Amino acid sequence: MRPDVKHVLSVTQFDRQFLLQLFHRADEFAALPPREIAPVARGAIMATLFYEPSTRTRLSFEAAMTRLGGSVISAEYAASTSSAAKGESIEDTARVVAGYADLLVIRHPAAGSVARAAAVTDVPVINAGDGANEHPTQALIDLYTVWRECGRIDGLTVALVGDLRFGRAARSLARLLTQTVGTKIYLVAPPVTRMDPLLVEELRSAGLEVEEADDLVAIAPEVDVLYQTRIQRERFSDPDEYAAACGRYVVDQRLMRALPRHAIVLHPLPRVGEIDPEVDTDPRAAYFRQARNGVPLRMALIEWVLTPHPVTVLSTNGHRHA
Amino acid sequence: MRPDVKHVLSVTQFDRQFLLQLFHRADEFAALPPREIAPVARGAIMATLFYEPSTRTRLSFEAAMTRLGGSVISAEYAASTSSAAKGESIEDTARVVAGYADLLVIRHPAAGSVARAAAVTDVPVINAGDGANEHPTQALIDLYTVWRECGRIDGLTVALVGDLRFGRAARSLARLLTQTVGTKIYLVAPPVTRMDPLLVEELRSAGLEVEEADDLVAIAPEVDVLYQTRIQRERFSDPDEYAAACGRYVVDQRLMRALPRHAIVLHPLPRVGEIDPEVDTDPRAAYFRQARNGVPLRMALIEWVLTPHPVTVLSTNGHRHA
Amino acid sequence: MRPDVKHVLSVTQFDRQFLLQLFHRADEFAALPPREIAPVARGAIMATLFYEPSTRTRLSFEAAMTRLGGSVISAEYAASTSSAAKGESIEDTARVVAGYADLLVIRHPAAGSVARAAAVTDVPVINAGDGANEHPTQALIDLYTVWRECGRIDGLTVALVGDLRFGRAARSLARLLTQTVGTKIYLVAPPVTRMDPLLVEELRSAGLEVEEADDLVAIAPEVDVLYQTRIQRERFSDPDEYAAACGRYVVDQRLMRALPRHAIVLHPLPRVGEIDPEVDTDPRAAYFRQARNGVPLRMALIEWVLTPHPVTVLSTNGHRHA
Repeated sequence: MRPDVKHVLSVTQFDRQFLLQLFHRADEFAALPPREIAPVARGAIMATLFYEPSTRTRLSFEAAMTRLGGSVISAEYAASTSSAAKGESIEDTARVVAGYADLLVIRHPAAGSVARAAAVTDVPVINAGDGANEHPTQALIDLYTVWRECGRIDGLTVALVGDLRFGRAARSLARLLTQTVGTKIYLVAPPVTRMDPLLVEELRSAGLEVEEADDLVAIAPEVDVLYQTRIQRERFSDPDEYAAACGRYVVDQRLMRALPRHAIVLHPLPRVGEIDPEVDTDPRAAYFRQARNGVPLRMALIEWVLTPHPVTVLSTNGHRHA
Repeated sequence: MRPDVKHVLSVTQFDRQFLLQLFHRADEFAALPPREIAPVARGAIMATLFYEPSTRTRLSFEAAMTRLGGSVISAEYAASTSSAAKGESIEDTARVVAGYADLLVIRHPAAGSVARAAAVTDVPVINAGDGANEHPTQALIDLYTVWRECGRIDGLTVALVGDLRFGRAARSLARLLTQTVGTKIYLVAPPVTRMDPLLVEELRSAGLEVEEADDLVAIAPEVDVLYQTRIQRERFSDPDEYAAACGRYVVDQRLMRALPRHAIVLHPLPRVGEIDPEVDTDPRAAYFRQARNGVPLRMALIEWVLTPHPVTVLSTNGHRHA
Repeated sequence: MRPDVKHVLSVTQFDRQFLLQLFHRADEFAALPPREIAPVARGAIMATLFYEPSTRTRLSFEAAMTRLGGSVISAEYAASTSSAAKGESIEDTARVVAGYADLLVIRHPAAGSVARAAAVTDVPVINAGDGANEHPTQALIDLYTVWRECGRIDGLTVALVGDLRFGRAARSLARLLTQTVGTKIYLVAPPVTRMDPLLVEELRSAGLEVEEADDLVAIAPEVDVLYQTRIQRERFSDPDEYAAACGRYVVDQRLMRALPRHAIVLHPLPRVGEIDPEVDTDPRAAYFRQARNGVPLRMALIEWVLTPHPVTVLSTNGHRHA
């Protein structure tokens, strides 16, 4: 891997100072009308390579690049089509497409594949999700949303709910929270999708207070940030067990009554039944605002990978408005 | 639905005056070389969300947006992929993608779904076809083509041929014709695809003269506009009956001899066998010109939804050149 | 076909003088940073219509158009979707999409289909592969790479290896080599994928020295350009025979030792097992550089089809640096 090329592969590559700089920059982009944004990516091409379809993530990256004045070339396929089907390695594809573009955004079903692609390219690569491994830009958006909504990233109690085992979103966010101070995490999941004990240990070693909980309503009054996720049906062999697991942790109006008035509810989306649409009009329902934060956050990331100059050092006190 | 956001959901939302303004504006766009078009959409992003593939309609919208200086992000999928497959509601998808773009263009297999999307978004939504319900931009293109080709929209005899029951194109056009004066409509269809009697009643109540006809050749001498449509094989249980129904209303050279010299033949395309390619070189074959009219007409529509100022009032006499 | 519209349909349409002009122009594009390229395609729209998926070729064309300041609208589908599935002819689709764009790039599984599309459109059409027939832009990239890497196109010994029967890449390149002087071609293929004797005769009649060879290692010391291709499993009824055929002509380090130090190895990619990845770091492995040459070469071609003025006549001595 060339040391002068910036990649975005894992949440573990970012420290607290970088995160806060990125969030401040994203805030600047979010505040500007589109026509007033400096076209820092003008003349640059982003290639999006999605080996798993994902409308939301791909369009968000493409919108961010477009808002920065850049261009996009795009390939999204089911596993059965194109070069992938002809048996080409991700390294070969990345090497070739790196000759067409100034930046690659890759989603791939195999854990570690995006890092392998980055190892052979001479342009920046952003991991848009590699199997059950990582989804770093989602976690950055999640923490950015916490910062925007709560005004700080420290001293918060965060409940991670749902699929903490296979879902890369909750796991990436948990890892990113190790960069915060005085954070308590509740893990709330049915037995089948409980967080890997090794990851729990990693979080504790990094200074987080982590507690497993069974009754979401009971802990709700303590929670500042409720992070709900979707449990995939495929994880369960017994459909009744699936229905029971899902039904148990639905965010509905009863749960909202137990949640503090200042709390927020996040979800990486798409949701199926795990948040009742009745909750949408509650001002604490922050998941659609969270989705929108994807564009300015990704603009800040794209600007960072495309520009050679170092980023200015800002305050590290973690507050949005110092 | 926010009252200050302009959507394009149904032909019934347009009155005669608006239509004529739109057609005049489309004519202006059609007359300009691409480089001389004012980039009124510069800095704006259109997201196309096609839950049913449609090369023609999607590319036409994307070309229109591009000609206006805007950018496009695009998702087209079979029903089995992406967020749709994960069970996300159209409302959720629309709400999220509205955070990425300044304008949504949606095609969806379920009638009413695009209006549901528009109800929850804060950017304009254009219906690019919602199941068997409506395809308003196609109908606008059709009537615009009549206006361009015949020089007026009033006092014409229009034969709607083929699938008048399930095909949204003919039905949307019939509804739009209620904004014209002195129009006579012939409905020419095999029993299985005859127009819904309720719609026929609606058209008559709105002042149209409507007559069902069986023999296309017999009425041809009276026809100013022959609007041919494709009958889908799926509508018939008996293949022989299908073949007979299709074969009966083919536009071929024999039929063209019965049609007046000033008449035009339209088709929303794609065609399969219902217009003989021999007819293509006849100057009355207007269907390829009709397809091309899609770009300037959609440019005029996009300009309308994206601009806040009211459109200038023009003549309502219905003639292209007053 | 309109005589004033330039299409790119077959390698046979290009003479030596045109090729050299094109290569010089591609070299100019390759040498420029993206922001310094004159936006000769500004305001123009390229429509890519891929009836067979091909990430590599499509993205390369789209990057080239984007680098020239133009815009892209894009459709790529499996044979089962869209208008194609509704039974529309390629002529109808091309005629309609030609109304949306200033340039069409078409890949289609049927030989001759792209020429049929070009016959009915009034904008340029570029053949991006039509079945087993031709892939002219790939051949142009291949010969351009020879010219860049070897400094000349004449007096070289070229070994074409692998699938010389069904693979359109090797066949298009062989035809293009008839424009060179003093070229010797070795044909190295298992019996099932040997070159069609009629084509061999055509090459000989055009002045090429052509020799069939069985032992790649034995001829390697004579070879200046080794052009490896992928053999498709589908060509063989017996899996053992397939494995034997493939294994026999793998480019590996043993073969590289037999190849002259000045030689180059090309491959149109994607590769599966026919070039050992160990070879990638050998400076003679030119296939990734070859893939990158696709963008400047296609830029030169797009510029040519979009501009009406004649191209300046340059030297025809075939040397890159005279």
